[in-house]
Amino acid sequence: MGALHLALVHGPVVNKRGEPITTAVTGLNVHDIARTAATYGLRGYHLVTPLLPQQRLVERIAAHWREGHGAAYNPTRKTALDLLRVTATLEAAMADVAAREGQTPRLVATSARPQAGVAAVRYGELRRLLAGDPRPVLLIFGTGWGLTPEALGRVDGLLPPIQGPGDYNHLPVRAAVAVVLDRLVGRQEAAPGS
Amino acid sequence: MGALHLALVHGPVVNKRGEPITTAVTGLNVHDIARTAATYGLRGYHLVTPLLPQQRLVERIAAHWREGHGAAYNPTRKTALDLLRVTATLEAAMADVAAREGQTPRLVATSARPQAGVAAVRYGELRRLLAGDPRPVLLIFGTGWGLTPEALGRVDGLLPPIQGPGDYNHLPVRAAVAVVLDRLVGRQEAAPGS
Repeated sequence: MGALHLALVHGPVVNKRGEPITTAVTGLNVHDIARTAATYGLRGYHLVTPLLPQQRLVERIAAHWREGHGAAYNPTRKTALDLLRVTATLEAAMADVAAREGQTPRLVATSARPQAGVAAVRYGELRRLLAGDPRPVLLIFGTGWGLTPEALGRVDGLLPPIQGPGDYNHLPVRAAVAVVLDRLVGRQEAAPGS
Repeated sequence: MGALHLALVHGPVVNKRGEPITTAVTGLNVHDIARTAATYGLRGYHLVTPLLPQQRLVERIAAHWREGHGAAYNPTRKTALDLLRVTATLEAAMADVAAREGQTPRLVATSARPQAGVAAVRYGELRRLLAGDPRPVLLIFGTGWGLTPEALGRVDGLLPPIQGPGDYNHLPVRAAVAVVLDRLVGRQEAAPGS
């Protein structure tokens, strides 16, 4: 099975008007996504921010739960935060995955729009690939209004956006992460009667 | 199609030792779950707390986004919070669903343990039921360490817990809500080639 990693990108991402920005890290996304990543058996949760003080903030939160009082008080939170790596760029996250897994990862993102030159990939297809192919996969999620065209232009595959039955589509990124991981590696129900 | 509603129960639920408690409402769950409920086309998000000051707090948050500056600033948040109903008990939430839908809802919960006298229901089964049967469904989620045995004893069906490939299972409730709704009413991928 290919090792699955996730990157949450805080910068550069785009704002409402498509301009490049850096979003603030929220402690909530650190904890929620680490717990979700641990539940779905991920090998790494890479938080990407170019801002040094924000990198330090996240490292401080993680250290509390990994080493401090937090580790004794809540060992399951330690397991989750042990997955966390903080990097300045997406490139650094990719290099970290490559170093740990011994192979450059496939880059896969979700996007609402098709992107010229990038292959669309179905959830079922990527699920089978993860189960059968040893090459690691790095799933990338953008905060704000999403990844920049430059980042989207570099990925190997684009998953379709998560949609419900209607047109409203404003899932929090931490909810989208959970749904995408469930579609890709969630334990499936046995067939009725088995 | 049966109308789908969701209840997030803050009390009574159980703590780590199985004792009945009431948990604090978090603004985060108000917003995140409302956005997820709107994305998946739910007809109501019922927040259950027996504590009057907490009921008022939630109503105040919702009013800001429904009627105040928030409604103009962020209309999609208004759409989400328009789904919110605050009730003191699960019974009141059920009565509200029955009044709005003209029929008593089926009560369905998720639980890690089988419950004597309660039928297990598969996600695929409930998905088909929602698509084909007009009776409304109220999905209930417990905060803290989950619903009380009394609440679980009253449901019509129990969905299996969400699991990844391994044993770690500590999804935040807002992530579990998103995954459960995606399994029940998420838009499925067309078959390859179609």
